[in-house]
Amino acid sequence: MRFVKGHGTENDFVIIPDPEGRLELSPETVAAICDRRTGIGGDGVLRVVPTARCPEVADQAGEAEWFMDYRNADGSLAEMCGNGVRVFARYLVDAGLAAPGEFGVATRAGVRRVRIAAEGDVTVDMGRPRVLGESRTAVDGREYQGLGVSMGNPHLACLIEDPVAGLDLSRPPRFDAAVFPDGVNVELFNLTGDHRVTMRVYERGSGETRSCGTGAVATAVAAARAVGEETGTWAVRVPGGVVTVTLDATTSWLTGPAVLVASGEIPAVL
Amino acid sequence: MRFVKGHGTENDFVIIPDPEGRLELSPETVAAICDRRTGIGGDGVLRVVPTARCPEVADQAGEAEWFMDYRNADGSLAEMCGNGVRVFARYLVDAGLAAPGEFGVATRAGVRRVRIAAEGDVTVDMGRPRVLGESRTAVDGREYQGLGVSMGNPHLACLIEDPVAGLDLSRPPRFDAAVFPDGVNVELFNLTGDHRVTMRVYERGSGETRSCGTGAVATAVAAARAVGEETGTWAVRVPGGVVTVTLDATTSWLTGPAVLVASGEIPAVL
Repeated sequence: MRFVKGHGTENDFVIIPDPEGRLELSPETVAAICDRRTGIGGDGVLRVVPTARCPEVADQAGEAEWFMDYRNADGSLAEMCGNGVRVFARYLVDAGLAAPGEFGVATRAGVRRVRIAAEGDVTVDMGRPRVLGESRTAVDGREYQGLGVSMGNPHLACLIEDPVAGLDLSRPPRFDAAVFPDGVNVELFNLTGDHRVTMRVYERGSGETRSCGTGAVATAVAAARAVGEETGTWAVRVPGGVVTVTLDATTSWLTGPAVLVASGEIPAVL
Repeated sequence: MRFVKGHGTENDFVIIPDPEGRLELSPETVAAICDRRTGIGGDGVLRVVPTARCPEVADQAGEAEWFMDYRNADGSLAEMCGNGVRVFARYLVDAGLAAPGEFGVATRAGVRRVRIAAEGDVTVDMGRPRVLGESRTAVDGREYQGLGVSMGNPHLACLIEDPVAGLDLSRPPRFDAAVFPDGVNVELFNLTGDHRVTMRVYERGSGETRSCGTGAVATAVAAARAVGEETGTWAVRVPGGVVTVTLDATTSWLTGPAVLVASGEIPAVL
């Protein structure tokens, strides 16, 4: 099996090309690949397969030639990942499977449009954020007010005065289960300049992570509101790097790095 | 740059073949390779280089054709690693650079003899353990008595009644700094059967690890003493698997798995 390893703001993936659509990736195989000591290691697997060959997404084939078959590190199926789509698009272009420019990527959450040059950052259409209203959270013994935002998944983005660098995010934030019955991803952010914020995120089920694409967009929405705007471009610093979020009247765009760091074979071919 | 990833009882390494002895691996490069999110990921790098081409170990060239140039994940130089030598030897044999059987591997701590078949586990001569005497440690709020053993590095191996599985090893054990002025690696173990023990280890500077080759040998020495023996063979279960330690009158042998899981190129070649 060939593989490529890549990451976007330190959210890392093992890319498995499957141009014939023949690979059966069992949950056990995915978990073995993603084990950081006994496998390649990654937050998930991105299988690269022609959309038309996958019945579950074949209806997207007219808009997106390639399907990002995304699996979590535990082997379970996943729908979408803003960092994963960037890395996926970078692989398609570098491998000659797609031309630089704008194209669609099929996902279990529907087609995602990407914009990509021959080199550099990748932009992905993250869809229209839906504002849910104000709510509260308790983090590290302190209470904060934030803005609930749905990006398909639920977020609570809190502009706070305390420096986010000093927060202890080792334990799950408390939140209002009446507002977020399925749990919530909590972002804490500081305004650090003109249209610039620094953010940390606690993802439900995962704990603190190095980066969260939907969380960056939710944070930009809350930051824009805080300065009385609804559209515009925000630089969002996350622990794993910097991404840029652009809000317009109809959708949101996430721009950030996507880097392919190694390629090879599993098992080892010497 | 070509690489191979391998592990021994979940102590994992990035092997970098350098048959011409031409690679300059800066600490920054090693750290980038070992980063688990933005690189391949590993506990260290094993550069595979002809002994005769390295002035620092050229005096070992008559006994060992290949030098294990071992670097820690932070890029610093390292001397020896029992798990690393097994993985290194497995690579030499599988790559056709050494024949199965017994041969020497050059290390910064001197030549290490290994025994290896075409497939399966690898045995490495760990040298003669030196017993330092009894000492005490405090772990997870409880005091334990143990046997001090030097394997080149210092160990305190403690046979305890409390099940090791239940211990909290998130904080460093306390120890007698008069006995161990340079710190000490602490092993806690239970007797689980005839010449069988289960061990956990807290390595100075690293915290709890999945496996520690010298710690397994120190544990076997303490276990043998506890049953009134000085030689013999012990199965030592560590969090990352099982290794076997054989003590004879002159030295100690560590036998365990060594698995190569992937190979490839850095940066990615698509």
